[in-house]
Amino acid sequence: MNKETYKRIMREFKWLDPETDLSGQDFFLTWEKSLDQLRQILLTAEMLKYYRENNISTRCFDSGLAVSQFRDNSTRTRFSFASAANLLGLTVQDLDEGKSQVSHGETVRETANMISFLTEIIGIRDDMYLGAGNAYMREVAAALDDGFEKGVLPQRPGVVNLQCDIDHPTQTLADLLHLKDHFEGLEWLQCKKIAMTWAYSPSYGKPLSVPQGVIGLMTRFGMHVVLAHPPGYNLTPEVVALAKENVTHCGGKFEIVDSMAEAFADADIVYPKSWAPYSTMQQRTVLLQNNNQEGLRELEKECLAQNARFKDWTCTEEKMKKTRNGEALYLHCLPADISGVSCREGEVSAGVFEKYRIATYKEAGYKPYIIAAMILNNRFREPLKILHTLEKRNIKRVL
Amino acid sequence: MNKETYKRIMREFKWLDPETDLSGQDFFLTWEKSLDQLRQILLTAEMLKYYRENNISTRCFDSGLAVSQFRDNSTRTRFSFASAANLLGLTVQDLDEGKSQVSHGETVRETANMISFLTEIIGIRDDMYLGAGNAYMREVAAALDDGFEKGVLPQRPGVVNLQCDIDHPTQTLADLLHLKDHFEGLEWLQCKKIAMTWAYSPSYGKPLSVPQGVIGLMTRFGMHVVLAHPPGYNLTPEVVALAKENVTHCGGKFEIVDSMAEAFADADIVYPKSWAPYSTMQQRTVLLQNNNQEGLRELEKECLAQNARFKDWTCTEEKMKKTRNGEALYLHCLPADISGVSCREGEVSAGVFEKYRIATYKEAGYKPYIIAAMILNNRFREPLKILHTLEKRNIKRVL
Amino acid sequence: MNKETYKRIMREFKWLDPETDLSGQDFFLTWEKSLDQLRQILLTAEMLKYYRENNISTRCFDSGLAVSQFRDNSTRTRFSFASAANLLGLTVQDLDEGKSQVSHGETVRETANMISFLTEIIGIRDDMYLGAGNAYMREVAAALDDGFEKGVLPQRPGVVNLQCDIDHPTQTLADLLHLKDHFEGLEWLQCKKIAMTWAYSPSYGKPLSVPQGVIGLMTRFGMHVVLAHPPGYNLTPEVVALAKENVTHCGGKFEIVDSMAEAFADADIVYPKSWAPYSTMQQRTVLLQNNNQEGLRELEKECLAQNARFKDWTCTEEKMKKTRNGEALYLHCLPADISGVSCREGEVSAGVFEKYRIATYKEAGYKPYIIAAMILNNRFREPLKILHTLEKRNIKRVL
Repeated sequence: MNKETYKRIMREFKWLDPETDLSGQDFFLTWEKSLDQLRQILLTAEMLKYYRENNISTRCFDSGLAVSQFRDNSTRTRFSFASAANLLGLTVQDLDEGKSQVSHGETVRETANMISFLTEIIGIRDDMYLGAGNAYMREVAAALDDGFEKGVLPQRPGVVNLQCDIDHPTQTLADLLHLKDHFEGLEWLQCKKIAMTWAYSPSYGKPLSVPQGVIGLMTRFGMHVVLAHPPGYNLTPEVVALAKENVTHCGGKFEIVDSMAEAFADADIVYPKSWAPYSTMQQRTVLLQNNNQEGLRELEKECLAQNARFKDWTCTEEKMKKTRNGEALYLHCLPADISGVSCREGEVSAGVFEKYRIATYKEAGYKPYIIAAMILNNRFREPLKILHTLEKRNIKRVL
Repeated sequence: MNKETYKRIMREFKWLDPETDLSGQDFFLTWEKSLDQLRQILLTAEMLKYYRENNISTRCFDSGLAVSQFRDNSTRTRFSFASAANLLGLTVQDLDEGKSQVSHGETVRETANMISFLTEIIGIRDDMYLGAGNAYMREVAAALDDGFEKGVLPQRPGVVNLQCDIDHPTQTLADLLHLKDHFEGLEWLQCKKIAMTWAYSPSYGKPLSVPQGVIGLMTRFGMHVVLAHPPGYNLTPEVVALAKENVTHCGGKFEIVDSMAEAFADADIVYPKSWAPYSTMQQRTVLLQNNNQEGLRELEKECLAQNARFKDWTCTEEKMKKTRNGEALYLHCLPADISGVSCREGEVSAGVFEKYRIATYKEAGYKPYIIAAMILNNRFREPLKILHTLEKRNIKRVL
Repeated sequence: MNKETYKRIMREFKWLDPETDLSGQDFFLTWEKSLDQLRQILLTAEMLKYYRENNISTRCFDSGLAVSQFRDNSTRTRFSFASAANLLGLTVQDLDEGKSQVSHGETVRETANMISFLTEIIGIRDDMYLGAGNAYMREVAAALDDGFEKGVLPQRPGVVNLQCDIDHPTQTLADLLHLKDHFEGLEWLQCKKIAMTWAYSPSYGKPLSVPQGVIGLMTRFGMHVVLAHPPGYNLTPEVVALAKENVTHCGGKFEIVDSMAEAFADADIVYPKSWAPYSTMQQRTVLLQNNNQEGLRELEKECLAQNARFKDWTCTEEKMKKTRNGEALYLHCLPADISGVSCREGEVSAGVFEKYRIATYKEAGYKPYIIAAMILNNRFREPLKILHTLEKRNIKRVL
């Protein structure tokens, strides 16, 4: 990055409504935030990246914990959160339910306070149970409000959604920043066609949070969002309704089609990714909650059989040719199911993936900065002022 | 906290015997420390809390490890230790026996040295085996002495007892600081009646360290300590003897009764908490050491049946009415077994717990500062001087 | 350590070829590095140790991750890596395959990039599979090259071999520094006889990396290296060939004998340690890769029976008497199988081990500094300049 980038970021900061404030606000769903709040997150992320690349330390905390809770396996989100915390001077402490007394019947209300005495931020990933993940985060947040108001906590730690059953804001904002960079400005996303489409995978039960997050976010930037999936692979109705409503406020277009080819036609961006049907996720949630192992095996068998009927929903060179100039940008949250690489038949052909592999890595590379930006905006009323302070302080990150 | 608090802490520091020194001393049992040493821990904790609340960084180490070893599940102690280490600038490295070669037959003597080359403090929780936990900590300490004397270690890391079979000093000192705050000074604890009483729980094998720690500590501050439990639920005889002896030196009173109601009568403070009888813990220790699973199941069955005979040993609104003005302070180390919340019938009714819930959270909130104070006092000869240095240095904790 | 040590280290730094540079170079095998590169690692380690002992902070990073990946249990290497990272200001983030999506079929190429966005160094231990451990590290390194070249990573993290199937450079360089200290200079190692000998152990499948690392390294310092093992307990042929070749370049002597007594005769240093025969490790690798549990049990039985034929291959007081003046220095990477202590019959008698116990602990104590020196040399072009900067900056490590 060079000085031009720096000037551009500074200029864009000035375009924001000066009242824009995210301090003290948890980050659950992108659609709960104003456009300027989202833009401020992106700009903060860009500036943190610029400082990192120019060896300017962005340590804002001399001590403090960043608590993570992963209720599902995670590599990139775990490392992104750890990187973000570290970049700002916070130390990660993982709440591992296996090693804690949480399993001893401790209430969420209590645990939330017990882990927060010296904590600045809590990042939670909970995407397994439909109707539960996001609700859990809000339960934690309410407990923190209570603890802070009643003097238990000297500060109210922020809560960041690291993926829930509804949305995956750290992912979709990283996607958006990737698009901003690729198309050289959010303003150029206007009317761009993005195909958020289901794709075949030999696994089942993949969460809905990414496709939902994408249609819920990209419709707000005036894009032409096409959601494509085979019959039955619906998303949560409320989120679909919200995407429809977004376009009436923000321009752009939102449509649902049942053909991958149709979605790809003249698309500027494609996001082919597998997910489980909403109704399957509902059934699965009940089975998981009852620990019905036989029922889960049965459901898995059914779903895999159903998936197998749509093996042609895969992103191939042929399909890519039908996109805008045959050169649509391919997005994926990773890891992708790559035909002939990570599975026999999957979401994307090896050729297409290889062509965009480095681009998807760069897409993922924005996530640590997005999370750091969320933390910084949660903790400080005026992020730009803080960024200026860091710059003037001018401590080298590496000696 | 305000300036008055600051002045009060400073004034109290001056009351201490100027020879008071905890540097280089491990913290195993509160009764191995002088009253002034304990007061110094409390004052250091209060000052660290004051600085934290006034955004003064208390980072004393620019590098160094704080090793934790948890031989049992833990949430609040784990987070308290992590918070304390972080507050002073140390990085926690957990000794997870599952992931180490400890299980490969490595000796304690050796492991203690191997984890300590660049280590400032080692916190150990080992409360499962009667006669073993505290002994293990002393074995580690002896190995560290040996390693330091013979030039293996450039410094002798301190050892902090994070709960053993005998005492739970980080908990009881947090309890004591909570009482100091509640009654506005240690001097006002004189003659206050505290009921440390057994309570029914639908689980078994709970350690003796909290009740033992409480009677061993509170008897030294001139309190009227009443230990109450059903017949057979005795504590370790040596600790009971010690509590008796304490009162002859420090004033106050110590008695044992077999009625919860009697203990509660006119009590200023109640601490209703379940534990396993000493004799059960002895049997259990043998069974655990022999990995006798059937014996353990048998013992559990017996104990739960025995416990069930004392379901009326529960802290209810009715019992609370008999305390001083019906307003005794309720203490608990958490998590409590709350009737109708975390279990069907337990240590305390939902109503009583809810009334004191926030108070118990605050009680727990002292623990990170108590641990940090123990570390600071272990590493520095003159903690007050260090605190002054931190204040004069005046680095902001948060930018 | 005193000022003389400081002057000696500075003097030795000046003897190095001024072109000596390790920056940007991964550390896989000692024999890929020049003698001056190895000397520079030792000197950097010595200086970091000197600074630590003189309370000079060596924090070179204000943020940044040090990623560790342990594919086998580890205590001392885990703590050494954590200590080294912490000493320089880096925060360890462990890549725990159980908790990551690595098991979900993610490619090494991808994972390597995903964990590296803000990472300075990656330490890997992978010693289970012959032909796989070192290869895995190089696969990671190649992926990082790719990611860095293509702009995914803002920096190319270094890779440090924390033990593979071929070599164990952090161990053998710690051994070498221990020898340098013991014999008061690398130049005095010339012609010293070191007996790297197999020893009986009641376990099987111990890796070849230590004996291979020792013969591959010590032959380059003009030592008289004797490798001793019972018939059949061969090492990897390529490494043995390399050790032979080393002596033609560096003087010294390399021989293989089939008698522990012969190896011990007039030895200045003895390193009795068990390992599995190369051919066994080959069989084991295939069985592990096929998850052939029965085959593994069968192999273990065979190997233990074979080991048992060589129980007299144990380091006793009697055998030690035949070494140079009966006073050879005993080395071990720890934990040793000590007869009557950690097993009934093992690599070394309790008496011999006890005599050298503290010495082996000191040997282990160099490892954190060796790893820190590897990191520092990987990240900085001129380590001496950095060391001088740290000294002039003069920040106290402990307040």
